[in-house]
Amino acid sequence: MQRWQIRPGNTTPLGLESAPSETPGPGEVRIRVRAASLNFRDLLALRGTYPMASNRPIVPLSDGAGEVVKTGSDVSRVAEGDRVTATTISNWIDGAFDPASARQSIGFSVDGWLAEEIVLPETALVKLPDAISYEAGATLACAGVTAWNAIVERAHIGPGDHVLALGTGGVSMFAVQIAKLVGASVLVTSSSDAKIERARALGADGGVNYVTHPDWGERVRELTGGAGVDLVIENAGTLQQSLKAARHGGTIAVIGMLALLSTAGAPRPAPGGGGDLMDVFRSGATVTPIVMGNRRMLTRLVDAYATRGIAPVIDRTFRFSDAPAAYAALASAGHIGKIVVTV
Amino acid sequence: MQRWQIRPGNTTPLGLESAPSETPGPGEVRIRVRAASLNFRDLLALRGTYPMASNRPIVPLSDGAGEVVKTGSDVSRVAEGDRVTATTISNWIDGAFDPASARQSIGFSVDGWLAEEIVLPETALVKLPDAISYEAGATLACAGVTAWNAIVERAHIGPGDHVLALGTGGVSMFAVQIAKLVGASVLVTSSSDAKIERARALGADGGVNYVTHPDWGERVRELTGGAGVDLVIENAGTLQQSLKAARHGGTIAVIGMLALLSTAGAPRPAPGGGGDLMDVFRSGATVTPIVMGNRRMLTRLVDAYATRGIAPVIDRTFRFSDAPAAYAALASAGHIGKIVVTV
Amino acid sequence: MQRWQIRPGNTTPLGLESAPSETPGPGEVRIRVRAASLNFRDLLALRGTYPMASNRPIVPLSDGAGEVVKTGSDVSRVAEGDRVTATTISNWIDGAFDPASARQSIGFSVDGWLAEEIVLPETALVKLPDAISYEAGATLACAGVTAWNAIVERAHIGPGDHVLALGTGGVSMFAVQIAKLVGASVLVTSSSDAKIERARALGADGGVNYVTHPDWGERVRELTGGAGVDLVIENAGTLQQSLKAARHGGTIAVIGMLALLSTAGAPRPAPGGGGDLMDVFRSGATVTPIVMGNRRMLTRLVDAYATRGIAPVIDRTFRFSDAPAAYAALASAGHIGKIVVTV
Amino acid sequence: MQRWQIRPGNTTPLGLESAPSETPGPGEVRIRVRAASLNFRDLLALRGTYPMASNRPIVPLSDGAGEVVKTGSDVSRVAEGDRVTATTISNWIDGAFDPASARQSIGFSVDGWLAEEIVLPETALVKLPDAISYEAGATLACAGVTAWNAIVERAHIGPGDHVLALGTGGVSMFAVQIAKLVGASVLVTSSSDAKIERARALGADGGVNYVTHPDWGERVRELTGGAGVDLVIENAGTLQQSLKAARHGGTIAVIGMLALLSTAGAPRPAPGGGGDLMDVFRSGATVTPIVMGNRRMLTRLVDAYATRGIAPVIDRTFRFSDAPAAYAALASAGHIGKIVVTV
Repeated sequence: MQRWQIRPGNTTPLGLESAPSETPGPGEVRIRVRAASLNFRDLLALRGTYPMASNRPIVPLSDGAGEVVKTGSDVSRVAEGDRVTATTISNWIDGAFDPASARQSIGFSVDGWLAEEIVLPETALVKLPDAISYEAGATLACAGVTAWNAIVERAHIGPGDHVLALGTGGVSMFAVQIAKLVGASVLVTSSSDAKIERARALGADGGVNYVTHPDWGERVRELTGGAGVDLVIENAGTLQQSLKAARHGGTIAVIGMLALLSTAGAPRPAPGGGGDLMDVFRSGATVTPIVMGNRRMLTRLVDAYATRGIAPVIDRTFRFSDAPAAYAALASAGHIGKIVVTV
Repeated sequence: MQRWQIRPGNTTPLGLESAPSETPGPGEVRIRVRAASLNFRDLLALRGTYPMASNRPIVPLSDGAGEVVKTGSDVSRVAEGDRVTATTISNWIDGAFDPASARQSIGFSVDGWLAEEIVLPETALVKLPDAISYEAGATLACAGVTAWNAIVERAHIGPGDHVLALGTGGVSMFAVQIAKLVGASVLVTSSSDAKIERARALGADGGVNYVTHPDWGERVRELTGGAGVDLVIENAGTLQQSLKAARHGGTIAVIGMLALLSTAGAPRPAPGGGGDLMDVFRSGATVTPIVMGNRRMLTRLVDAYATRGIAPVIDRTFRFSDAPAAYAALASAGHIGKIVVTV
Repeated sequence: MQRWQIRPGNTTPLGLESAPSETPGPGEVRIRVRAASLNFRDLLALRGTYPMASNRPIVPLSDGAGEVVKTGSDVSRVAEGDRVTATTISNWIDGAFDPASARQSIGFSVDGWLAEEIVLPETALVKLPDAISYEAGATLACAGVTAWNAIVERAHIGPGDHVLALGTGGVSMFAVQIAKLVGASVLVTSSSDAKIERARALGADGGVNYVTHPDWGERVRELTGGAGVDLVIENAGTLQQSLKAARHGGTIAVIGMLALLSTAGAPRPAPGGGGDLMDVFRSGATVTPIVMGNRRMLTRLVDAYATRGIAPVIDRTFRFSDAPAAYAALASAGHIGKIVVTV
Repeated sequence: MQRWQIRPGNTTPLGLESAPSETPGPGEVRIRVRAASLNFRDLLALRGTYPMASNRPIVPLSDGAGEVVKTGSDVSRVAEGDRVTATTISNWIDGAFDPASARQSIGFSVDGWLAEEIVLPETALVKLPDAISYEAGATLACAGVTAWNAIVERAHIGPGDHVLALGTGGVSMFAVQIAKLVGASVLVTSSSDAKIERARALGADGGVNYVTHPDWGERVRELTGGAGVDLVIENAGTLQQSLKAARHGGTIAVIGMLALLSTAGAPRPAPGGGGDLMDVFRSGATVTPIVMGNRRMLTRLVDAYATRGIAPVIDRTFRFSDAPAAYAALASAGHIGKIVVTV
């Protein structure tokens, strides 16, 4: 089988190679990969700037979907022929994030989905109903679950509430779809009026251009009638403005690595970044970090998209042989929603 | 102004009379009533079988809407001309139900909405946006908030979850609408296939006829693929079947007086009623009582219906002078949704 | 190594035999068992009346403690020489109970602790600090975690709250200790004034003799000044009385198999048993089942007992060769707290 | 009756005067004040730097206790002769803080406790059991409830958990007592080894001198075995260090005005102050503001201290006529716990 590897220190860090099929051990299954998707942290891993990146060659990508083709002994949750995806940290089934579990981070500490085959423990798997295509199923585990965790599990957003998503990338477009699913209103920010228009066409109730409105937190507050939003999906490192946008008693869900990056020399602007921690008290909002989510959340998300008939927003799809072009598309930041590789 | 009174012990318990306008005291307002709605417990109060009914003459109905026409001193939350409704227990603002607060139960321990005017403390009031008509606003405080409390606040129902509402009365039709608002699937039960069809037309995903399926709990479980529902809105006194319908870890929200009545000689059937408390452990579901809800919940519900553009299901509307006919319509149990009196 | 087995269908169901040491596989460890403890369901398993009992020979007991003597490959959480106990369901790490996980129930679906050695997946293990003896550590996983789950995790009992534990067995005496740890008051019930006195000496604030007070729920309510308790640890199948004892808004935590048994022909009395499900609404209490707990809870419990310097209540300790006598002692129901076997 | 007033703009801002007794209106009671206590924000109000201070003369102090001497009409919760204290915001009964309720802030927007008599709405009152002296009861409403809210209601701290309180003032010493009540370990910080020793004598498990350990967050983490604390009571404006002290998944409860003040020119040092909001994600802790608490919390706190037999830490008690000296003692920051005025 063919697989892409990130090879730390190589001048061309992404390399394609042949490898023998792996035999699944007890409790493991081998999956014929059909699709995978990229997240922003995959770009950092390629560049060697991701804090938890492997220092040995590794098959990248935490998100994918495929068909079970071989089961090891003691496998009971899935059978050959099942269509599946997997949670991003393969032993995180339920409950709170345990930093120790990061040793099982697919695509970062163990081989990921950018290959024709992947072997995973059955505990990581979630079955895909027919209503979810492989391409769609490949986008959910990281970006989709992150938005679900923030909106549904942490902030208990409901009908009549207001959500703000920053930018129009993968997490933000999931936030738009999930906020609408739970009956909330949702705004986006962008540097581009055209992207805001596309986001509206995809379900957002409105948006604020942070270039033309540098004090965009205030503008968001105005758009909610002065009260502020119930939840900010903060994946841009702009907490000072986010705190202005949030209502007293609201939540700022800080989405990991994008936020870190923005303050650590990220290529994209962070207007309203920084902020003093005392702003937390002034705003009355709670600031809480979100580290993706567990298998139970992924299962709920799959159920929700299947029963409500929703398709994730996919900007572009690349062939397996064009994987480097998929990374380049992500780096150019021109996309709305997810970038997918079909295998 | 004209008002209807329930007069305990009278052969004609509902009587119309004239009364002088009341002057609002400090923190109070006078409201010109525009609409009121009936709940099942109002029928019990009329019959003298409601446990908490007043034993002196009282203006009935806990639910209504109107226009503020006069404000007392120290009023800051509303102004003359505001369109308002009120929470059913006028001093229950937020947090858990306090049995002591029942002393402020509108229509039961203090005069209610079946009158041309009502004087209420401003703390009870919630403003109605233009998107909510007086008739719609008059249906929310008891039945709407009960369904909201169970689905949104207690059980945190979300996309992909399954809800079961028993019957097609006021609480059940709110449960259908709110379950759909939060992205869930929802089933109803009924003794009538025609009512199930009407409920489907109003948003339900399906239904079970409990006459043709006496073991309807099992049938509901089948319709959810064998897992069972996440929440039962139990307002029929049929916990044995409800526990069969619920999934392990699910919730049975027991809605007060209807359930009590069913086992205490209610006019309508309670198939699957009774049940042994040990069934709770066998089912793995939690059984929790719901006592309407507070002003914060009513405010959220009003916001949700206004921003999502939803109209409560109103079966019939009666004129103020025909109030006795409204009670008779409720007693006949032929309705779907709410029965409203316009004033 | 020597091990006891329950052999379904045998006239002497508990048999001792020699078996070779098992080699731990990937992610597994072998433990030299030092102590184990019995729970009521172990008695049912011996009698063949436990619903989930194995129908093949199995080493019983879900609770034990010992020393890691050999680690398989890919083991990172523990090392040889570590003192450990294990969660009762070896793959339940965090979050809600998943009925599917019962396939990994130690002592019931996989071999348990009544042996000189046990092989377990490292994911199940919790390290024991020096402050926790092997005997103490062997009592925590089932009875201790059940009480912890009900008091700390589910009902959030705190200072000034009131807890009621039924009887003076293992779960109840943990309930007494944990209720005191969190600053609450705690009452017990018993058929014996002498046991109530012993329970007081071990920390209970008082007790009610259910033989001399058949309507003991009312008596408990009186002892709390009329308000009722915040939490009942209901492990006796007496929900009718428990609902009388609970306050409006309180919690009845139904502890599984003991409760089931009481109504299904248990040897001990169930005064106030049965009860109608409508009592739930009348009481205003929530009835919720508790199925032991996960590894995170066991870890918290171990930390709590170690840092607060508390020793579980152990009634009697038996030698490994006297295991049948330990079962007999449990069956005689004369104990207070736990019965332990040292290995 | 005699009362002290803060008179904005006066050269001697605190003045004593005689005033006639006030007649309680409907739902109100008059209380003979027996004790009152000072909080840090009272000092700011005196100095005119408290953001929400009244700009007209006002009787200060939000915390006090006394005896009901006269009841207005429609009063049912208390009777003449009852010993009572009151919640700091008189209409905040239960649920989340509503900024609009600040209009009823005792001692800031309505007259407070530094007088021989106070008239309050009965809704604000909590009865004091005999076990709570007037002096003790006068310390609970602001500082005690703030610590309770953070530890019990928000962070659900339990046995085996670790709490960090900053400094040894009123909130911190309540945090020490409440943390111990719920079975947790608790550390304090101070600039004085002597104060740390006194805090240990009063229940703290240890402390860190932030002068000799400028990087005290790391030192706290070491003292918890490297994991970090579950909760920081952050009332010093030192979030950068607090985030170092907290564990992944822990909570930083930001206590309002003290924190604000520290960064805005406070007299006391703020080592480790400021901090970048991105530190939140790096730490994995949640930062949440705490605004005192509601009447339900005060009721629970009173119950807890009464049933557990705990006395709040009172540093010094001043006579009514020496109220200015009480303010001076608070300003000198030499105290441990609370400063009380007896009336």
